[in-house]
Amino acid sequence: VECGRTYQPSKGLYTCPECGETGILDVIYDYEAIQPVLTREALAANHDYSHWRYLPLMPLESREHIQPLSVGWTPLVRNRRLEEALGVGRLFIKDDGRNPTGSLKDRASSVGVAKALAEGEKVITCASTGNAASSLAGFAASAGLKAYIFVPATAPEAKVAQLLIFGANVLLVQGSYDEAYDLCSAAATRYGWYNRNCAVNPYLIEGKKTIGFEIAEQLGWQVPDWFVMSVGDGCSIAGAGKAFDELFRLGLIDRVPRLLGVQAAGAAPVTAAFYQNATTFHPVKPDTLADSIAVGVPRNFTKAIRQVRSSGGTMINVTDQEILEAMQLMAGLAGVFTEPAGSAALAGLRAARSAGVIGPHDSVVVAATGNGLKDIKAARRITPEPVLVYPDLADLARKLEATH
Amino acid sequence: VECGRTYQPSKGLYTCPECGETGILDVIYDYEAIQPVLTREALAANHDYSHWRYLPLMPLESREHIQPLSVGWTPLVRNRRLEEALGVGRLFIKDDGRNPTGSLKDRASSVGVAKALAEGEKVITCASTGNAASSLAGFAASAGLKAYIFVPATAPEAKVAQLLIFGANVLLVQGSYDEAYDLCSAAATRYGWYNRNCAVNPYLIEGKKTIGFEIAEQLGWQVPDWFVMSVGDGCSIAGAGKAFDELFRLGLIDRVPRLLGVQAAGAAPVTAAFYQNATTFHPVKPDTLADSIAVGVPRNFTKAIRQVRSSGGTMINVTDQEILEAMQLMAGLAGVFTEPAGSAALAGLRAARSAGVIGPHDSVVVAATGNGLKDIKAARRITPEPVLVYPDLADLARKLEATH
Repeated sequence: VECGRTYQPSKGLYTCPECGETGILDVIYDYEAIQPVLTREALAANHDYSHWRYLPLMPLESREHIQPLSVGWTPLVRNRRLEEALGVGRLFIKDDGRNPTGSLKDRASSVGVAKALAEGEKVITCASTGNAASSLAGFAASAGLKAYIFVPATAPEAKVAQLLIFGANVLLVQGSYDEAYDLCSAAATRYGWYNRNCAVNPYLIEGKKTIGFEIAEQLGWQVPDWFVMSVGDGCSIAGAGKAFDELFRLGLIDRVPRLLGVQAAGAAPVTAAFYQNATTFHPVKPDTLADSIAVGVPRNFTKAIRQVRSSGGTMINVTDQEILEAMQLMAGLAGVFTEPAGSAALAGLRAARSAGVIGPHDSVVVAATGNGLKDIKAARRITPEPVLVYPDLADLARKLEATH
Repeated sequence: VECGRTYQPSKGLYTCPECGETGILDVIYDYEAIQPVLTREALAANHDYSHWRYLPLMPLESREHIQPLSVGWTPLVRNRRLEEALGVGRLFIKDDGRNPTGSLKDRASSVGVAKALAEGEKVITCASTGNAASSLAGFAASAGLKAYIFVPATAPEAKVAQLLIFGANVLLVQGSYDEAYDLCSAAATRYGWYNRNCAVNPYLIEGKKTIGFEIAEQLGWQVPDWFVMSVGDGCSIAGAGKAFDELFRLGLIDRVPRLLGVQAAGAAPVTAAFYQNATTFHPVKPDTLADSIAVGVPRNFTKAIRQVRSSGGTMINVTDQEILEAMQLMAGLAGVFTEPAGSAALAGLRAARSAGVIGPHDSVVVAATGNGLKDIKAARRITPEPVLVYPDLADLARKLEATH
């Protein structure tokens, strides 16, 4: 992504040997060979309702190492009451909390684990704010790989519980995500573990991007005006943008949606750089309850900002309070309970709509990137207390009157 | 189910007017009319990958009130390492934790809410150990129905958090599930709310049964030797059994699987009655960590026991410790994290295999009825503590050495 050099894929080649670690590689396919194979008709006839239906655009030679956990092809939920509340033409929630371990990261981990198996690796590692960790642990368990997972000690307890029940070796780092990341990288080098981190492993974004393929296909190849996604490291939105670009290149769609990247106000180095038109970012100390996007050093900054710009899109920030209100709105009107990083996207849409960036007739897809069950403490910050009653109708009648 | 009388469906008719509340009704379809419509070929051409693909065998006149949350067609996960560990021929996990609010109960609530809307109701109620509650709250939110939900105060906090974020009126009853049930019934009568309780509403089991349809279709209409499911109230296993019977009647399958019903040893009135060959049960005071099946008064006892018997199946009990070990086994080998009521089924399979009830070459489908994220406290009872490290490679090396 820095120097533009190209390499043939080879084992252990993660970053550009000339540029070093900031020289993240980008996977380029033989699009001319793929075009006749991956057509709308071929996909309509394909009964594999998982993200592997897009295998020609994914970095695996075969299906041999694909785990039986069904990833992707998550529902696209439309709800009229939510459309009215937000004041947009058409609004769809892409409910990626329905993935095997409850987040979009399953798309990446399923590719990472298959890749590790294909390369004959036995041990895999990653650092994560939580979701990448639990998804890697789940897929490693399925594959029988040993996993070493580095998470900040502040990770929500449900995500840590997932890691442990999947049998991963869990290292709770007394520090930030960024420190957990550095420790994981150092350990991967020292012990020779397979590195699942998106920041250096170019294949993971190839899993994440499938969310974009699915949205286009689920909408009958009529992409929305806007695709809204929260941004932490930057890898996910970069993936979605790449997906739309690839579909456009293959002639499967006739335009790409604008990308709206949403950051938590307390962890917004990408938005800051975007508005300063900068080619690099200033690291920040993250301060947000949206743990999945609490990233101060966004290592996929370059890819992310490039995709947002080329789509004609923009970036916006939202406060933690706006994130919680959006969580309540999505759950209360559409019945979709998503974690803070997911509702941050809806909050961003709301803010962009208020600012006039998104119009009243625009069609929008919002990525609900993780299941709300992963962080119930966040939900409880915005919900009222339940009513305690005795098993007695008279007591119930009194309590109901009191609450109305 | 008691007297064998038949009635045409009508608004407000939930139980047999002659038998009273124990006279639960059973929905019977015009199978001769359905047979030419619901064929293997018609289903193979049907692109609706949700449980509504079986609409001719569901109690709705039209699709009008179906909510956009995608229910059913959950993955059937096969894992060889788990097969080896359990010593069975073929083992599939039906991962119903992948439903919209994370449990099999979404199948029932999606039908209940559509039915309430079709009857013009505005307020809906249920009592639940947790999953039926959160699923009803989610679907009521999507539909804009007001919901009053009664749960025992001991319900896991994640399930209560779901109720609250979905905007339901949550009544935490200071008592058991059975007391919450009684209070809910009394309130439904007094306030005229639509009653979603499976114990009286015969339409809900018609949602639950779709798990059986899906298993048969996903296995290419070759049903397994055994279908294993945990049993609380009895409604879910009765539904699955009814589904297989209906498919057999329609000629879509050539035999039905044996049903293995699994109860927690601390809440096992159905198993007790089964082995005593009794036509009624003795209520118990539930004592198990598997909250979803902690039922002392199983109101669908008659339907459940009838289905288990007619399938040539049996019942078995498992301890809480066995439930936790099975949870760890399923997560650690197959990457599927299910709540205690889900892993109870795997524990039951293990016990039945040890007892020789299930043979080494048998094919088995195990129902993972709820997502593990709904009850992480249970998971943490069986998992080790994570390792705390400082962001320092030397500290990591010391800690890794100490743990090996």
